[in-house]
Amino acid sequence: MSRYMDVSMPIRNGMLIWPTDPPVEVRVFKSPDKGDRSTVSAVAMGTHTGTHIDAPRHFLPEAEGIESLTPEVLIGRCTVLDVRGRGNVGPEHLRPALEAGATRILLRTGTIEKQMEEGFSKEFPGVTAEGARAMIEAGVRLVGIDTMSVETYHAPGAPTHHALLGARIVVIENLLLASVPAGDYDLIALPLLIAGADGAPARVLLRTLDG
Amino acid sequence: MSRYMDVSMPIRNGMLIWPTDPPVEVRVFKSPDKGDRSTVSAVAMGTHTGTHIDAPRHFLPEAEGIESLTPEVLIGRCTVLDVRGRGNVGPEHLRPALEAGATRILLRTGTIEKQMEEGFSKEFPGVTAEGARAMIEAGVRLVGIDTMSVETYHAPGAPTHHALLGARIVVIENLLLASVPAGDYDLIALPLLIAGADGAPARVLLRTLDG
Repeated sequence: MSRYMDVSMPIRNGMLIWPTDPPVEVRVFKSPDKGDRSTVSAVAMGTHTGTHIDAPRHFLPEAEGIESLTPEVLIGRCTVLDVRGRGNVGPEHLRPALEAGATRILLRTGTIEKQMEEGFSKEFPGVTAEGARAMIEAGVRLVGIDTMSVETYHAPGAPTHHALLGARIVVIENLLLASVPAGDYDLIALPLLIAGADGAPARVLLRTLDG
Repeated sequence: MSRYMDVSMPIRNGMLIWPTDPPVEVRVFKSPDKGDRSTVSAVAMGTHTGTHIDAPRHFLPEAEGIESLTPEVLIGRCTVLDVRGRGNVGPEHLRPALEAGATRILLRTGTIEKQMEEGFSKEFPGVTAEGARAMIEAGVRLVGIDTMSVETYHAPGAPTHHALLGARIVVIENLLLASVPAGDYDLIALPLLIAGADGAPARVLLRTLDG
């Protein structure tokens, strides 16, 4: 019987964020303790907080916002690749999945859970410019990763982001994949509909295919 | 061929919100114009902003937060009922769907688009306490509505919210249903995973069943 796996990072005060991003603040705004009818909280965060999706506009100022990403790409069959301990992700890591026709690829590098425990580090693997090109040529529509960025830290010119977003490939970052074995799943990745935004926090689920 | 319909309210500055809720602010935080590598925005809003899902904790302070809502309830077959012009929603409006075994019900009252144009009004239909009880007895798991609240404005004691949330029925508010004919769909409703929160903004899609 198929089951859902939640691969989204919980949003909370003090969570791991990109060092130069807006701080996350979640606080109680209304509550019965204050004489209100109900409890309502206020949330402040960046558009790239937690598990989130990049819009083309994130690196291409004239390009589309998050509303341009269609359900037909955000939902569907995906392949999780286990690339732990293999460094940056290039064509050689991707080739088997690309040859099998994968159009949505999630990369499990084993990075994010360590940073959630130990704090941000600039040392994390990313997709190389060559890896990005291989995915574009193969017709990939979506790529996700369990690091804070699909690209190595401050790669000069950000070629991976420019290539992927320029090709209108959906990029998901900060996925929690520690419990997800390599293989095929059905992906549901829904970003908040923040009008015109450069990205948005998202809830992302995988459904197993068995049964 | 089946297709997706987005029934989520865009989040933006100046959008319709519940009058006593936190204001919505979306602003550019980093951008190439400021010398940054990329564009990142900052968002401030309430947990009940736009299309959102109530957690039991919203009206029951000791109850579960938004993380308690499972994909098995948030995703699946739903029935959209057209109740425009019929006032508050009671058992008589719900009976045919309940007798047909609907477990997820979306109520199209024709309200929200008018308020998005003209501003908030206390005059909107809600589910009556009797309607809530009928759904609980019938085993409904999720109810959504195109008003700012599933309950009429400041109903004394908030019986509808208490009944639905007490029965752990998922409540979705501020759906945009103006383009959705009555009938059956596949629903995907994913709230942001804000740890322990009383509710969360959500992205909500319907998929048509044809084909």
